[in-house]
Amino acid sequence: MSRKSKGINAERELVHLFNNNSWGAIRVAGSGSSQFPSPDILAGNKVRRLAIECKSSKKPVKYLTKEEVDELLLFSNMFGAEPWIAVRFKEWYFLNIEDIKQTEKSYVVTLEKAKQKGLLFEELIKY
Amino acid sequence: MSRKSKGINAERELVHLFNNNSWGAIRVAGSGSSQFPSPDILAGNKVRRLAIECKSSKKPVKYLTKEEVDELLLFSNMFGAEPWIAVRFKEWYFLNIEDIKQTEKSYVVTLEKAKQKGLLFEELIKY
Repeated sequence: MSRKSKGINAERELVHLFNNNSWGAIRVAGSGSSQFPSPDILAGNKVRRLAIECKSSKKPVKYLTKEEVDELLLFSNMFGAEPWIAVRFKEWYFLNIEDIKQTEKSYVVTLEKAKQKGLLFEELIKY
Repeated sequence: MSRKSKGINAERELVHLFNNNSWGAIRVAGSGSSQFPSPDILAGNKVRRLAIECKSSKKPVKYLTKEEVDELLLFSNMFGAEPWIAVRFKEWYFLNIEDIKQTEKSYVVTLEKAKQKGLLFEELIKY
C-alpha cells in the first residue's frame, strides 16, 4: 500500500470515529496540495470545531514539516477551529501544537510525548 | 469536460472566492459518495460556518435530489453549520432550503427564484 493510501486510510478511520460519536466530520479534498491552507480533517459538533492534521506511524516517532503546522494554524485561525495534531501510534493521540517539539525545520512527535501530553479520542471529544 | 470535472471546477471557484475574502474554505473529499453525510464545501470565519451544496448550470433551472438536501441538513446539524445551496447561473446565487421548491422526489432551483430569493456572494459573506 502506498504512503498516500495509508494516510487516506488513517484519515478515514478518524472520520468514522467522529461520525460514530455523532460529530460531523469530513476529509478535505487535496489537502497539502491546495494553493490555500487546509487541514486533513474537519470535525464539529454543536459547540466545537476541530481542524486536524493527521499522521500515522508504525515507528514510535513522527515528523511534521513546519509548513504543515503553519498551514494548520493559518486555516484554523481563518475558519474558526481548534488546531489539533492527530498521530496514530496503534492508538490515536491528539496533541496541541505547543505540546510537540519544534526543531529547526520540522516538528517531532514521539510516542512518549504523545502518551505524556496527548489526549485519547474519548478525552478529546469530551473535554 | 466530464460532468464530474465541471462540478469540481465550480467547487474550486467557490473555494477561491471564500479564500480571497479571508474566509477559510475547503472542498470535501468524496462528497456524495461517502457513507456519512457531507456537503460539497465548508467555509468559515471567526463567527460563521457554512456547509454548502454546490451546483452549476448553463440552463436556467437546476435540480437537487431529496437525498442531497437531506444530507446537507443532517451534516449541518451535526457539525454546527448553516446549510446553503449554491447555484451558479453565470453568477453565484446562495439559497436557503426553505426558499427552493420541493417536488415529490427532488428540489428545483430556477434562475428566476434564485434572483428573487437568493443572495449574491458579497451579500452572503456580509450578512
